[in-house]
Amino acid sequence: MKKSLKEIAELIGGKIVGDGNIEIEGVAGIKEAGKGEITFISDIKHLPLLETTQASAVIVSREVKEVKVPLIQVENPYLAFSQVMRILIPHEKPAEGIHSSAIIAEGVDLGKKVSVGAHAVIKEKARIGDNTIIYPLVYIGKGSRVGKDCIIYPQVMIRERVEIASRVIIHSGTVIGSDGFGYIPHEGRQHKVPQIGRVVIEDDVEIGANVTIDRATLGKTWIKRGVKIDNLVQIAHNVVVGEDSVIVAQVGISGSTGIGKGVTLAGQAGVVGHIKIGNGAIVGGKAAVLKSVPPKTIVSGYPARPHVQAKRIEASVLRLPELYKLVRELKKRIEELEKKR
Amino acid sequence: MKKSLKEIAELIGGKIVGDGNIEIEGVAGIKEAGKGEITFISDIKHLPLLETTQASAVIVSREVKEVKVPLIQVENPYLAFSQVMRILIPHEKPAEGIHSSAIIAEGVDLGKKVSVGAHAVIKEKARIGDNTIIYPLVYIGKGSRVGKDCIIYPQVMIRERVEIASRVIIHSGTVIGSDGFGYIPHEGRQHKVPQIGRVVIEDDVEIGANVTIDRATLGKTWIKRGVKIDNLVQIAHNVVVGEDSVIVAQVGISGSTGIGKGVTLAGQAGVVGHIKIGNGAIVGGKAAVLKSVPPKTIVSGYPARPHVQAKRIEASVLRLPELYKLVRELKKRIEELEKKR
Amino acid sequence: MKKSLKEIAELIGGKIVGDGNIEIEGVAGIKEAGKGEITFISDIKHLPLLETTQASAVIVSREVKEVKVPLIQVENPYLAFSQVMRILIPHEKPAEGIHSSAIIAEGVDLGKKVSVGAHAVIKEKARIGDNTIIYPLVYIGKGSRVGKDCIIYPQVMIRERVEIASRVIIHSGTVIGSDGFGYIPHEGRQHKVPQIGRVVIEDDVEIGANVTIDRATLGKTWIKRGVKIDNLVQIAHNVVVGEDSVIVAQVGISGSTGIGKGVTLAGQAGVVGHIKIGNGAIVGGKAAVLKSVPPKTIVSGYPARPHVQAKRIEASVLRLPELYKLVRELKKRIEELEKKR
Repeated sequence: MKKSLKEIAELIGGKIVGDGNIEIEGVAGIKEAGKGEITFISDIKHLPLLETTQASAVIVSREVKEVKVPLIQVENPYLAFSQVMRILIPHEKPAEGIHSSAIIAEGVDLGKKVSVGAHAVIKEKARIGDNTIIYPLVYIGKGSRVGKDCIIYPQVMIRERVEIASRVIIHSGTVIGSDGFGYIPHEGRQHKVPQIGRVVIEDDVEIGANVTIDRATLGKTWIKRGVKIDNLVQIAHNVVVGEDSVIVAQVGISGSTGIGKGVTLAGQAGVVGHIKIGNGAIVGGKAAVLKSVPPKTIVSGYPARPHVQAKRIEASVLRLPELYKLVRELKKRIEELEKKR
Repeated sequence: MKKSLKEIAELIGGKIVGDGNIEIEGVAGIKEAGKGEITFISDIKHLPLLETTQASAVIVSREVKEVKVPLIQVENPYLAFSQVMRILIPHEKPAEGIHSSAIIAEGVDLGKKVSVGAHAVIKEKARIGDNTIIYPLVYIGKGSRVGKDCIIYPQVMIRERVEIASRVIIHSGTVIGSDGFGYIPHEGRQHKVPQIGRVVIEDDVEIGANVTIDRATLGKTWIKRGVKIDNLVQIAHNVVVGEDSVIVAQVGISGSTGIGKGVTLAGQAGVVGHIKIGNGAIVGGKAAVLKSVPPKTIVSGYPARPHVQAKRIEASVLRLPELYKLVRELKKRIEELEKKR
Repeated sequence: MKKSLKEIAELIGGKIVGDGNIEIEGVAGIKEAGKGEITFISDIKHLPLLETTQASAVIVSREVKEVKVPLIQVENPYLAFSQVMRILIPHEKPAEGIHSSAIIAEGVDLGKKVSVGAHAVIKEKARIGDNTIIYPLVYIGKGSRVGKDCIIYPQVMIRERVEIASRVIIHSGTVIGSDGFGYIPHEGRQHKVPQIGRVVIEDDVEIGANVTIDRATLGKTWIKRGVKIDNLVQIAHNVVVGEDSVIVAQVGISGSTGIGKGVTLAGQAGVVGHIKIGNGAIVGGKAAVLKSVPPKTIVSGYPARPHVQAKRIEASVLRLPELYKLVRELKKRIEELEKKR
């Protein structure tokens, strides 16, 4: 899509410095961008790149002064740039309608302008909201609901009685509603506990590729509004994740744990079951969280401790060889003292 | 399904305290249960909840006395409750028979009452046992065998010559029989070693979602009777897992390692190749197991050590700042002594 | 396939000791091999097994002398054995041609002798090179390219505009080209950054099962020639992996990080974003790499440090209880000295 710089500035609420009539038809990073492309800088330290960029225009913060290239000044350049990306290169929707090879059971309720791709399978009583895109090879189980304006990428598996709200994006290979991992040991064997609960996913959630979210034993596993989940994350039965939390790749959350609002779990962190992570807490990468974390607390390490304490402990461990040396020296001086006494 | 309390008590071998004629048609947790539902308590500390529950009946251990709500006394309340779940809410089987869109090669041997879902693909010479359910979009490779009463959820991939016994459950997205990760470095490049072995999975195994179990280089990768595997677990080529072992989410087991019987590997643990984990051993969450573990041993930590030692080391690390302080103080006292000598 | 020992020796460039006319039709490990099978030993310590093996022939290194069983002497026995595996048990290709249930969009460009399996879906403008095998239930997105002689196993998902070169193998459940994990926090919510870049995978790469490789935000995520990736690995947007590097199972690499040539990342290691791992570096299992690693350096630990330092620190931590004891003893001796002064 082609737009004038003026049009773009209006759409993102920015102020033009330079020629607003130039035409923009693409986006790129500041080093790669060329003629007809717009780019951005979000950090003052990249200002010198404004002198050398080949881009036709640059989105900058308000304090950036006139330079040789046309600018759009905004409050948050990266946010504005991401809006421009969405305008110039819109998500390419597959054609509306149901592919002839899709298998849609009787009683399925499809909204308006729904797209269902080749070889998708939708079971009895499922409901799909308006404008939602179901890509090829997706499975949606009996009685499940997917809301409006969702994007369900190829090969996603949604089992029975899962509830997904609106504007949810689910990437390929992700499994929603598989059985929780529950067994009772009895006479040396593991006896399966039926997992008859549900999964509920609220509005504006995005879930990466090859994620697993298990259904609850009873009740529900619950991902609240605006949560963002990266690839290969494991969310066990009866976990609750609060609004706007961010869960980075390969994190594992054990059963019945509650994650608060606005929490960040960095990559490969693990959280044991039946604990609470308070609102706004940050869990460091690879941290092993063995007990509840208070709100707005940063924890890291193995086992996870408040980050300041974890850093202090790490520093004292690093200085251990020198402590050993000092103690050996003190021992000698004591021996000297003992001899000369 | 609806049953009287008396019928339920008979089915689970329990003793009724109160009115056995009431009708039960659902199950729930003790806080959520309402009229017509049965619940349980498995821990004495939850006894006060018996006073406030809205459930129509509660399964309890033998020592719980009469209360205002009808009870079923049993030896193991959670086990009995899970049996009741299975009775009242049976696994909803898809209709028997082969969906018209499934692609089944010539020479495939299907047992009685088999269900094969939409768009499933079953290759030459595969055999599927009686009552087994193959959900939609499953792939079963040439010459593979799935036994009786198995449940293979949507989008499972089973490659060629895999042997799966009876009452096995495999959740969605799981890959069985992919090539092991074997290369020979030669003149700066990695040369692939063909992986021509098999995978053998015995009776009563359950495998979670998005698990990977590689085929052996030669011989077999072998998951023995009753093993339970959680989501996103990696099992490398030629691994053997002994009977009734439990492998929690995101664990990784490297090539040719042998896991004994009744072993527990907690979440995100990693085990190097070519070692043995003894029968009944327990490996803590996130532990890095670098050498063999004797039977009935608990190990934890990075690297994994006997749990008691790991806890002692962890405690001494925590006290390091105070040790530094003490040593500094001792140094001063020695200097004092040296001066005054 | 059946071959004489002489034929095999010629094909792998080895020298026969014993009867070259015997016929070989299978391969096995030295303990399992029987009549008609060839095996190998690559380590001198296994020499005694030559006395007891039931194999009809053994591939050995040049220094192994005549024994009772026919030998082929070569420079690298395991490499030669893997060549023999490939000769005697060739990868069983599915029949060429397009299965009638595959959905191939208009304008798709299929090379010669391509195989496309049942229920595969190939979108507009995709190109598939000669001899490439697309197994059943694979999805290939719009405008993507797969080169010659590739093997794409069942249920692989390749999204739009992905470029895959020749002789690439991708195992089941792997997702290539899902959106990178990019958001801008603004007024308490996470705003998605469109991910409009590509993924480029060069010649001779092999990718395990259930791996995730995200597309770049802008530009490309880039896996260079000869890289080998194990199962359940996460590769984030804009990562570059250099030639011939090896990435073991469950490793995670964060956004924009550059991995050099010939690097080894052992199992479950994690690498933060925006750093460089130098050529030939080795990262230990479960290591947490928080800063750039120089070329040819071995790092391990949490956080990762040069391996020698990590081992020294680990050793000093192990000796902590004895240090505490020594310091307590020194304290007493100081008290003695102070008293007697």
